[in-house]
Amino acid sequence: MQGRAKATRRSLLEAAAQLFEERGYAGTSISDISALSGRTSGAIYFHYACKENLALAVMEEVFDTWPALVRRHREADIPALEKLVALSFSVARAFRDDVVVRGGSRLWAERKSVDASLPSPFEGWIETVVALLEEAGREGVLTPSVSPRKAGNAVVYAFFGLHTVSDALDGREQIEERLHDLWLLLLPALQAHPGATSLLDRAHAHLAGTPGTQA
Amino acid sequence: MQGRAKATRRSLLEAAAQLFEERGYAGTSISDISALSGRTSGAIYFHYACKENLALAVMEEVFDTWPALVRRHREADIPALEKLVALSFSVARAFRDDVVVRGGSRLWAERKSVDASLPSPFEGWIETVVALLEEAGREGVLTPSVSPRKAGNAVVYAFFGLHTVSDALDGREQIEERLHDLWLLLLPALQAHPGATSLLDRAHAHLAGTPGTQA
Repeated sequence: MQGRAKATRRSLLEAAAQLFEERGYAGTSISDISALSGRTSGAIYFHYACKENLALAVMEEVFDTWPALVRRHREADIPALEKLVALSFSVARAFRDDVVVRGGSRLWAERKSVDASLPSPFEGWIETVVALLEEAGREGVLTPSVSPRKAGNAVVYAFFGLHTVSDALDGREQIEERLHDLWLLLLPALQAHPGATSLLDRAHAHLAGTPGTQA
Repeated sequence: MQGRAKATRRSLLEAAAQLFEERGYAGTSISDISALSGRTSGAIYFHYACKENLALAVMEEVFDTWPALVRRHREADIPALEKLVALSFSVARAFRDDVVVRGGSRLWAERKSVDASLPSPFEGWIETVVALLEEAGREGVLTPSVSPRKAGNAVVYAFFGLHTVSDALDGREQIEERLHDLWLLLLPALQAHPGATSLLDRAHAHLAGTPGTQA
């Protein structure tokens, strides 16, 4: 794709995501997207054909964000539980700060009322967390009675519930503090040996010192 | 209210809740509710005036369900952590089996697109869980380093995330198994002394033997 066409598509995608987040799918019209992006309705139809395709493109963009982020965290030279904690903070920041991720999040919450059939994010996240917990098991730091699969499911429930509650209570403003408190409860259950607080500190130090893991 | 008027309002409420769950707020019309309930549109306007009021009535009915359920569980003559676990299973069953709760759940997920301003359920649930954890603390069975408030928040995140993920992955069919696995992760973090499995068994025995705590 030409550079200019790519820039146009990106600006349309971001304007659509912002409106989907603020007004929902049903409450957003092509002319709203045109007004916010400063592009003509003709350009929108040319690049995306219809609103449904824009919603799908927002969701695909969100789903494309995660594999690269997961890979960067998984490849880090730190213990698996620290990778998991650092990854969770990166994702939380994306949900708080990234307009496309936020738009995709509201589209997904209202997915049953969107015409397009939107993919579910949970299977992929469960597999990612299970793999990291299995890695922690091989490192000998996972509580022996913990099943990586069952615990991986539970971690994903807790993490996505955190997003819902945090969005409802304070627009995700306190999501990092809430995530910290969540890990203070979960880590002692996962860790064979005590040390939740120092693990959280190391994960934060890793995040602060590694470009590309911020969000 | 007369008995017959009450029965009419109830049948309208249940029909509306079922349609809100299946088609969402925007996808449900007064004539759909009329067709499903077998009552005239005139009756609907007479009793509820508009669709928005029906949505509010469904939500109010859900919110009215919880205090009585919480009270029955809190008054049970069992340890606080068993009350909390038993309550969580009662609520999970309501989300799986009760048409009004299910309708309210979808309305709430799509609340930003519903005209009426719907209340948030989270503050009330957080206070309930914090109170039960404080009670467990007084009973001397809570891990000393656990803060009832922080842990109470985290339990509510995990529980509501469970509902979202369970709804997305299998229409809540496996919600009890998933909840069981969630408690197997959370209880060892909450309990000062081991015994998650036997606590879960006792909570289930209590649920099975106590009328009015089923859902």
